[in-house]
Amino acid sequence: MKARVHVMLKNGVLDPQGEAVRHALGAMGFDSVEGVRQGKVIDLDLAEGTTKDQVAEMCEKLLANTVIESYEIELG
Amino acid sequence: MKARVHVMLKNGVLDPQGEAVRHALGAMGFDSVEGVRQGKVIDLDLAEGTTKDQVAEMCEKLLANTVIESYEIELG
Repeated sequence: MKARVHVMLKNGVLDPQGEAVRHALGAMGFDSVEGVRQGKVIDLDLAEGTTKDQVAEMCEKLLANTVIESYEIELG
Repeated sequence: MKARVHVMLKNGVLDPQGEAVRHALGAMGFDSVEGVRQGKVIDLDLAEGTTKDQVAEMCEKLLANTVIESYEIELG
């Protein structure tokens, strides 16, 4: 089975990487871009029967820094 | 309007970051993890009326290195 985890900086946490992308897109003429946030996506191949709770534990312990980052899990 | 872009290393391209995560999860006792690929997710705030083609152009020109990375666009 597969799981996809998104790890994003929480709202209110400055995102210099996203800001740099926004600035670069503007400089390239993409005027329609009003804001950019950049995060990580982690695709996991898991043994059958792995639960969402186990994936959440991986996020809490390793994949996300929950002080400044939030995560979302999609099992698929 | 919002768009979410996923940028992942193409299949066959080594992903040392994903491999490091897989190894770390294994060392922490998460034995159910068989493979990990790590990529980027970019959330764009766009002016109304921006087309998927325009977002694809941003990907081709800046957001992805299409030699080694593939991208997926979701408009939402």
